[in-house]
Amino acid sequence: MSLAIPLSKRGGPLFRQVYQGLREAILSGVFEAGDRLPSTRDLAEQLGVSRTVVLWAYDQLLAEGFAAARGGSGTYVAAGLERDVHKKQRPAAKLRVSYFGSAAAQVAATVDFPVRRSPALRYDFAYARSYVERFPFEMWRRILLRHSRKAPVREFEYGQAAGTLSLREAISTHVRRSRAVVCDASQVIVVNGSQQALDLVARVLLERGDRVAIEDPQYQGAREIFRAAGARLHAVPVDREGLDPDKLPAQARVAFVTPSHQFPTGAILPLTRRVALLDWAARENAIVVEDDYDGEFRYEGQPLESLQGLDAEGRVVYIGTFSRTVFSALRIGYLIAPKSLVSAFTAAKWLCDRHTATLEQQTLAEFIASGIYERHLRKVRRRNAALRRVLLEAIHKHIGNSVELTGDGAGAHIVLWPDRRVSEDALVARAASRDVGVYGISGYFLAPPSRVGLMLGYGRLNEHEIREGIRRMAEIF
Amino acid sequence: MSLAIPLSKRGGPLFRQVYQGLREAILSGVFEAGDRLPSTRDLAEQLGVSRTVVLWAYDQLLAEGFAAARGGSGTYVAAGLERDVHKKQRPAAKLRVSYFGSAAAQVAATVDFPVRRSPALRYDFAYARSYVERFPFEMWRRILLRHSRKAPVREFEYGQAAGTLSLREAISTHVRRSRAVVCDASQVIVVNGSQQALDLVARVLLERGDRVAIEDPQYQGAREIFRAAGARLHAVPVDREGLDPDKLPAQARVAFVTPSHQFPTGAILPLTRRVALLDWAARENAIVVEDDYDGEFRYEGQPLESLQGLDAEGRVVYIGTFSRTVFSALRIGYLIAPKSLVSAFTAAKWLCDRHTATLEQQTLAEFIASGIYERHLRKVRRRNAALRRVLLEAIHKHIGNSVELTGDGAGAHIVLWPDRRVSEDALVARAASRDVGVYGISGYFLAPPSRVGLMLGYGRLNEHEIREGIRRMAEIF
Repeated sequence: MSLAIPLSKRGGPLFRQVYQGLREAILSGVFEAGDRLPSTRDLAEQLGVSRTVVLWAYDQLLAEGFAAARGGSGTYVAAGLERDVHKKQRPAAKLRVSYFGSAAAQVAATVDFPVRRSPALRYDFAYARSYVERFPFEMWRRILLRHSRKAPVREFEYGQAAGTLSLREAISTHVRRSRAVVCDASQVIVVNGSQQALDLVARVLLERGDRVAIEDPQYQGAREIFRAAGARLHAVPVDREGLDPDKLPAQARVAFVTPSHQFPTGAILPLTRRVALLDWAARENAIVVEDDYDGEFRYEGQPLESLQGLDAEGRVVYIGTFSRTVFSALRIGYLIAPKSLVSAFTAAKWLCDRHTATLEQQTLAEFIASGIYERHLRKVRRRNAALRRVLLEAIHKHIGNSVELTGDGAGAHIVLWPDRRVSEDALVARAASRDVGVYGISGYFLAPPSRVGLMLGYGRLNEHEIREGIRRMAEIF
Repeated sequence: MSLAIPLSKRGGPLFRQVYQGLREAILSGVFEAGDRLPSTRDLAEQLGVSRTVVLWAYDQLLAEGFAAARGGSGTYVAAGLERDVHKKQRPAAKLRVSYFGSAAAQVAATVDFPVRRSPALRYDFAYARSYVERFPFEMWRRILLRHSRKAPVREFEYGQAAGTLSLREAISTHVRRSRAVVCDASQVIVVNGSQQALDLVARVLLERGDRVAIEDPQYQGAREIFRAAGARLHAVPVDREGLDPDKLPAQARVAFVTPSHQFPTGAILPLTRRVALLDWAARENAIVVEDDYDGEFRYEGQPLESLQGLDAEGRVVYIGTFSRTVFSALRIGYLIAPKSLVSAFTAAKWLCDRHTATLEQQTLAEFIASGIYERHLRKVRRRNAALRRVLLEAIHKHIGNSVELTGDGAGAHIVLWPDRRVSEDALVARAASRDVGVYGISGYFLAPPSRVGLMLGYGRLNEHEIREGIRRMAEIF
């Protein structure tokens, strides 16, 4: 039998090419079980290669069990390999996925999870971004490098599931001081950004069918993970003061809230509503998940302190992230668990991915402990405050006071609520035609919203760009 | 009313201490809803601070809604704050957790998830470790630093859920070449180590109650994540040739296997069994999850190629990791999905934590593309092969051939199976008393094992230590 094995100079070692040709011939049924393979001498001659090459290839086939040697009588195709003859042509299997898997596949179709790249508009009011242009990368790199140099060998092996102690301590000190969170380092679980914290919450706290109270509108990453977990979402309407506690449902297991700067409307939940929310949770034995979104950036008075700090019964899970204050691609956030849930959350983190990368944790820990983080926050806060002032003045000057506006009390974006005569898409398109990037809010609603809203981030523009962008915006109203 | 607010020089800004004292007084019921707070002048005098300090504190209370101003008549405690009087003393809420959450809490109790630190024994045959002592950290750091310097700003923002393209390409090229995996970069999903790949498998493929075939013994990280997902585990016995395909169950959704070097026995699954396993999967419409544990390290002939490469129907999910070949604390691994499952797995990754940290992905991509990774692998392979030879010779010389031994064909650990008269714990303790670290295998079994087994890793010792360690081991048999 003559075997056509295509050999190429660029195809890697010859013995390997020969081996692969033989293997393919066996698997595709050119040789069948029990067939005698050509002698090494014959095959070497036939292919124009040295006999050593063929011997190597046969050795490999023998080692892998594709072939068997029978005394001195030669090499035979092994038994037990009977498969469809043309295996590569078999149609792909139809595989079932789980409830979660099919929910995830739907997310793939609806959410723009592989990064939204906004069109390159000159006046792009992009929101929910970190302040990478102003981030002290040089300092960061220096700490990173020092740590990677001095770290003892064991720090490159598996680390603690809940995170490295130095980072957990830096985080607990920071949130105690700046957000009045009541905790110690043992309650801090380092995660890969707030999304993983949300996922851990969904898994540790929710059964399929459990009810979850969620602000409407809401962050889609939270909505989709709760939905994929099989939760029944109960939309609680949000007004200018955030979530309305009178509309909280009976018998919810979890309420997910963003009290510091409601995402996406920007409302700040006032104290009386916070207290009402906690009282509701106590009545329902529900757990409140506080995503302290933009808690660091408040413009009038000090930041309103965290909901967690008001909680007297240990029923608030507090979530924070460095995605906006350091940079998003770092993928570090934290979950601060009530003491009774620390071991479940820690073990859940271990089951999910053992722990977060160590070197980045150490770098961040020192970045915080050295005070550079606080200094960076103060700078960003000052800058955002100045930009916000410019934005509000420009709106006042060019658009006037007729258009409703929310979210200017904190964070780095506002929402404009124009009259409903025009669609969001039309407004966004008209703005884009004037080189202005604004973003519709409707995608964040669970129930179709009754109003049109436009989100305008201002943290990444300069004063001139903000003024000019708003001047152009005025033309489209 | 006289208020005792303890002020301290080290307690941070005075206005904040005053604010916190007042807040505490309100929350604990010293002041009740509607009570008039002391005038700023009175309180300033009483506390011995300037009136500005008190004004600031009151502003903050007003901003947060703890207090309300009534015309010129003073500042009053806000209504709607009626809570238990001594809130901090309320007993902690009893919170329910999910099925997954309670399974995780049990894992916390049974698995040593916060890093096993083996006792400091001189001849420690630790296993399943990376080769950090020999890792080319200097090269790694150089690439890391270069990337962190030259990366454009957008690389610090959110990245692609499935991973950065350069790394996905480097991985697909590597596994195609060295493991005969049939794939392209679009099927590669970068994850945080193989544990996250296992978690994604559990979530995307399994419903609670689904049957999962699992080798017995098996890796506890796989066992526990499938168990926490509510799977019914069906233990398939492992013999010297690995999993016995005749013992595979009917109607399983998933089979989890480690064909290259069964963990922990070290058996290498021969080709006929691989084919039988795939045929079983085709009959049952099951998915085979191949954890290519130690696939890079095989000592006789070339590494046996991956099961995935034999699969004709796209029903193998292939999992690999850099935890052993780069370093564990990096937390990067990969999952190679059949094409039909790519979007579900990608979206699941997004839901879990959006994506893996970018800078580390880029560093690793270049580390592989530059050839340094391959060179490091070759070095480790050569060194492990030499150490293995020394180990086998030492066992032959000191212990003899009476003790059964598995796992010497690949990887960097073997298993000794002494006669059953002594317990594992006793053997481990006796070895430790001679300064030798060996590890019992029984914890990896789902069903209580019928035999005693000791695991001996050899990748982290030198030749002398191996010889002396085995000489000492011989005394305990």
